Amino acid sequence: MTAWARGTTPEGATITGVIEGDHLHPRARLGADAAAGAPVPLSDVTLLPPVAPGKFIGLWNNFRAAADKAGNAYPTHPLWFLKADTSLAGPGATVTLPESAGRVVFEGELGIVIGARIRDASPEEAAAAILGYTCVNDFTSLDVLNAEPSFAQWTRAKSFDGFGVVGPVIATGLDWRELTVRVLVDGRERQSYPAADMILDPATVVSLLSRDMTLNPGDLIACGTSLGARPVKAGQVVEVVIDGIGGVAVTLA
Amino acid sequence: MTAWARGTTPEGATITGVIEGDHLHPRARLGADAAAGAPVPLSDVTLLPPVAPGKFIGLWNNFRAAADKAGNAYPTHPLWFLKADTSLAGPGATVTLPESAGRVVFEGELGIVIGARIRDASPEEAAAAILGYTCVNDFTSLDVLNAEPSFAQWTRAKSFDGFGVVGPVIATGLDWRELTVRVLVDGRERQSYPAADMILDPATVVSLLSRDMTLNPGDLIACGTSLGARPVKAGQVVEVVIDGIGGVAVTLA
Repeated sequence: MTAWARGTTPEGATITGVIEGDHLHPRARLGADAAAGAPVPLSDVTLLPPVAPGKFIGLWNNFRAAADKAGNAYPTHPLWFLKADTSLAGPGATVTLPESAGRVVFEGELGIVIGARIRDASPEEAAAAILGYTCVNDFTSLDVLNAEPSFAQWTRAKSFDGFGVVGPVIATGLDWRELTVRVLVDGRERQSYPAADMILDPATVVSLLSRDMTLNPGDLIACGTSLGARPVKAGQVVEVVIDGIGGVAVTLA
Repeated sequence: MTAWARGTTPEGATITGVIEGDHLHPRARLGADAAAGAPVPLSDVTLLPPVAPGKFIGLWNNFRAAADKAGNAYPTHPLWFLKADTSLAGPGATVTLPESAGRVVFEGELGIVIGARIRDASPEEAAAAILGYTCVNDFTSLDVLNAEPSFAQWTRAKSFDGFGVVGPVIATGLDWRELTVRVLVDGRERQSYPAADMILDPATVVSLLSRDMTLNPGDLIACGTSLGARPVKAGQVVEVVIDGIGGVAVTLA
């Protein structure tokens, strides 16, 4: 297992690299093998989201338990939306809940990070193009989502600044079927579900998305959430934890 | 009036700059004043989309004639979606219509290009943050858009590779109220409507979007289409023309 991370140094440089021991070892880019500079002590690094994706894709209705409860049919093609680049936030961020967002819920999710450029990939090719997995909190404004009956505002509801929390690392070599996605609010567990309950599995999702469009290295796919998403409010600390990847916490303001 | 363009040189360099006479004059970045290299003859430059936006935003239901015909209420906040980065195409591109897209229509649109980082901007601040205007063809798959009753697939329908045609330049100093958006298919005019029929005008759109999220230089907002969008098929040449900006044509395959 390798843990990819991105961070800023005290000198203001942004480094992408691999965590080994208590150092971040720079690489030229995500997924590159060769070293690209001297290791930096992690204690000197401020972690950023481990990737700045060209496409930040989110899935709807991709867990059996949630689909069954809501009475939704299982999708045969990913039902997806995009989150804005400016929604991206990383470990330790403060996320402001705008008044215009109204009621906001957390959604703990497993994130897939793409490692190669693919188009029309088979499930096997898609599996090989997955660099690793990360934690995502796909914050969503319920009031904005449903404000206009003629036009469901998926992207607007999920694209306020900081509503796309990602981190702390991209972990490679994991078996997604063994992962559990948990959300802690002020340290108390509020959501917990097995990734294995996914309807369309990661390789299938990536394969089918690659028939819609080209996927590039760094593209990020949040796999959708299951039961247990709850409203949040200013002052809370909300952390998404997946054992094997770690936890990414933000403070709400 | 200034015409911003982006292109590749025979040496493979990508230049952003200003067109003066028959040369592209390089600038350090979009909107920068100072020269950044020797002028290159336009005859040596292959034009790209004039901007590679961080956010490629599209609006729905923003023209009175189309809203009236469909019986849609006029929006008071932009109803918007994002197009994928990989949907971007420029002048002269060949755009493949994938079999999975089914019926595809052109949508000629006026594009707003942002020139400054803004958040919670007033309409006056928003107007000042508009760098200029470009032509957009927001190709849309009708079959994908309406394939799933429980989830309107705006982004997927509009994000196939090449479905976001932009160019040929970003023109500054125009009065958007005087512009006419036209689409020619194989040289024959198939869509023509006045930009002045817009429901939410550019400054209002940019101001309200900046309350949803931070807008950055290069972000692109396609203002929505009006009556006259029509199905297209392989072999056709489809050009969006706005006098004062120019025309951007692609060949469908």
